Amino acid sequence: MNQHFCRWGILGTAFIARKNWQAIRDAGNAVLSVVASRDLRKAREFVQGCQKLAPHPETPRTLEGYEAVLADPEVDAVYVPLPTGVRKEWVIRAANAGKHVLVEKPCGCNVADVREMVAACAANGVQFMDGVMFMHSQRLWRLRHLLEDGRSVGNIRRICAQFTFRGGEDFFQHNIRTNPGTEPLGCLGDLGWYTIRLALWAMKHQMPENVTGRMLRHVNAKAGAAPVPVEFSGELFFRDGVTASFYNSFVTENQQLASISGTKGNVTLSDFVLPFLGTQTRLTVRNTTFVTEGCRFDMNEGATEIVTGEHSNNAANSPEANMFRNFSSLALTGRIDPHWPEIALKTQIVMDACLQSALQGGREISPGC
Amino acid sequence: MNQHFCRWGILGTAFIARKNWQAIRDAGNAVLSVVASRDLRKAREFVQGCQKLAPHPETPRTLEGYEAVLADPEVDAVYVPLPTGVRKEWVIRAANAGKHVLVEKPCGCNVADVREMVAACAANGVQFMDGVMFMHSQRLWRLRHLLEDGRSVGNIRRICAQFTFRGGEDFFQHNIRTNPGTEPLGCLGDLGWYTIRLALWAMKHQMPENVTGRMLRHVNAKAGAAPVPVEFSGELFFRDGVTASFYNSFVTENQQLASISGTKGNVTLSDFVLPFLGTQTRLTVRNTTFVTEGCRFDMNEGATEIVTGEHSNNAANSPEANMFRNFSSLALTGRIDPHWPEIALKTQIVMDACLQSALQGGREISPGC
Repeated sequence: MNQHFCRWGILGTAFIARKNWQAIRDAGNAVLSVVASRDLRKAREFVQGCQKLAPHPETPRTLEGYEAVLADPEVDAVYVPLPTGVRKEWVIRAANAGKHVLVEKPCGCNVADVREMVAACAANGVQFMDGVMFMHSQRLWRLRHLLEDGRSVGNIRRICAQFTFRGGEDFFQHNIRTNPGTEPLGCLGDLGWYTIRLALWAMKHQMPENVTGRMLRHVNAKAGAAPVPVEFSGELFFRDGVTASFYNSFVTENQQLASISGTKGNVTLSDFVLPFLGTQTRLTVRNTTFVTEGCRFDMNEGATEIVTGEHSNNAANSPEANMFRNFSSLALTGRIDPHWPEIALKTQIVMDACLQSALQGGREISPGC
Repeated sequence: MNQHFCRWGILGTAFIARKNWQAIRDAGNAVLSVVASRDLRKAREFVQGCQKLAPHPETPRTLEGYEAVLADPEVDAVYVPLPTGVRKEWVIRAANAGKHVLVEKPCGCNVADVREMVAACAANGVQFMDGVMFMHSQRLWRLRHLLEDGRSVGNIRRICAQFTFRGGEDFFQHNIRTNPGTEPLGCLGDLGWYTIRLALWAMKHQMPENVTGRMLRHVNAKAGAAPVPVEFSGELFFRDGVTASFYNSFVTENQQLASISGTKGNVTLSDFVLPFLGTQTRLTVRNTTFVTEGCRFDMNEGATEIVTGEHSNNAANSPEANMFRNFSSLALTGRIDPHWPEIALKTQIVMDACLQSALQGGREISPGC
C-alpha cells in the first residue's frame, strides 16, 4: 500500500469500541473511515457521541450492516468487537473481502473456529491479531528485558496471574458475558484469555505439557444449556516443573495481579492488564536475601520499583494506541506477521484445554499444539 | 503456677533455635533455663555463642540428652526444633513429663502422628502449639480486622500464597529438609505449612471440602526411598467456590507473597511470613474501581497502605517474641487453649491430603476433618 494511514472500519458499537475509537485516533498512522451497525441509527448515535468526546479530524461515516464495510474500498482493516458467538463468521468474511482483522478476545468459541479464522486470513494475505492491549505496552518490553537479564528473575519457575471484576445483579441478568449463546466461555474467555496469555508470553510461547481447570462457579442461562463459567481457576504445567497458576472471576472485585518468580528473584505487577489511572506504569522487582547475623534472621526486601516511560493517561502512549499503531504498520507495509495469529491460536488451545479439564473434574489435559 | 516467668528448655541446637533463644529473652514473661543436646559440647557451644550475641540475664544451663530436660523440675515448657522425623517421640515424652510443648513445623510426618501428640498433650493438661511466628504478629490482627470490616475485602473468594527460597547445591546435598528420614515432607512441610496455615486462618479454620496437590519437582535421596517434594503447588476448595492456591519451592528465590481477594477488594502482603528488615510491616488494601468517562476506560487503583505498629527490627514486638509471650502466658495461667492444637492438626490434615493428591496424579482429595 502506498498510504500513510491505515483506514479502519468498526463492526458493531460494543462498549469497548469507544475506547478503540480513541485509540485509532491516537495511533498516528490510522484513520477511522466507517462505523457500522445492524441498526444504522445505532451507528449514527455512536459516531455522534464519540465525535463529541474524542473527535477525529474527519467524522467517520456510518453504514448499515457489516457487509457494507467489507465491500467498502476505503477500508483496509476492520476491528471486530462483535460477540464471540458471531465473531467467526465476520472474521472469515472480512478476510475473504481482503480486510485485515483485529478481533476482540476470546477469539472464538473453540479452537476449531479460530483455526478457520486464522486460515482464512492466511489464505487472503491479511493480518490477524487479537485485541490484547497489554501486548503493546512499553512495560511489557521492559518486563521481557527483566526476564532476560539473568539476574532480576533468573530462570522462570512460577507465574501467577489473577484477573477479576465483580459484576452486579444487572450484569448477571443482562450482560452477554454470562450468556452461553454469545459468550459461552464466560469469565474464562473474557478474563482468562489475559491470564493465560501472560503466562504463554512469559514462557516465550512454549506450550504447556498439561493443564488443569476448575469451574468454581457457573451460571446456566437455560435448562439444558451448557454451563458458563463465572469463576474459574487453572494451572499450566510446562517443561521442567515450571508452572503458571491463574484465577478469573466475575464475582471478585477488580484485581489484576501478576507475579513471575524465578531462580534469582521475582517481579510483580499490580495492574498487568489495564494500568492504574494517573500513575506511571510500574514493575516491582524483588531480589530478597535472607540474612542471618548472630541470633537475628532477617529478610532484606531488595526491591526495585521500575517506572516505564508510558503514562496511563498519556493517550498517544497507551497500550491501545500502540496496538492500533502496530497493527496499522503491518497493514501499511503489507508484511503480515504470523506471530500474532500463532499466539492467538495458542491462547485459545490452552484455554479450551483448561475448560475441557474443568468439564472432566479437573483432570490433567494435554493441550497438544 | 504462681510464677511470673515461664521457664523454658530447648531440645536441640537447630539453627532456628538461635532466633528463638533471643525471642525467649525478649518475651518478657519467659526465662530460658536450659539448652540440651545429645552432645553436651554442642549445647555448651550453642549457649556460649548465643550468650555473646544476645545475652540472657542468667546464662542458661546445658544438659546432655533431651531426657534430662524432661526430668528437670525447673522447666515448665519445652521448645522442640528437632527434625520432623524424631519430633513425635519427644513431644509425647515431654507431654508425659508434664511439660508444655512448642513444636516446630511441620508438626509431624503425618496426621496420625500429630493426633497422638495432641492427644498426649491434652491427656497431660499441657499446651501444644506449633512454631508459626506470623500467627503472633500484630499485622495478623490488623488483617483480620480488614477481612471483617465488610468493605476492604468483603466476602473472601480467593487466597493466593507463595513461599519459596532457593537452596544451593550444598542445601540439596546436606540439608535435612531434603532428606526423607528427617524431613519427608520437604518443601511442603517446611514452606507449605505456612501457605496452608494462612489460607485456613483467613477462612477462620473452616476446612476445605477438597484439595489438590502437584509434586512439581522432587528428590530421591536413595533408590526406593519416598520422593521428597522440593517444588509443590496445591489448591484448596472451600464451600461456595472459595479457593486458595499455594506454591512452595526450594528452587525459586525468596518470595513470600500473599493476596486475599474478595467481593469488595483485596489485600496483599509481600512478606507474609518474615517481615522485611528495617521496614514497618505493611498491608496493601486495594479497592480498585473501573471508571468509564466518554471514550476513556480507567482503573482507579484505590490503594491504601496500612502500616502496623510493629517494626521488624524491634525485637520485643517481633512475631517470635510475641509467640513466646503468648505461649508463656498460657502456661503461667494454666488455661490451656485448645485452639492451637486444633489448628496445627487441621494444617497437618490439609497438608497430608495435598501430598496424597500429588501422589495420586493430582486428583481431588477430601481431607476430612
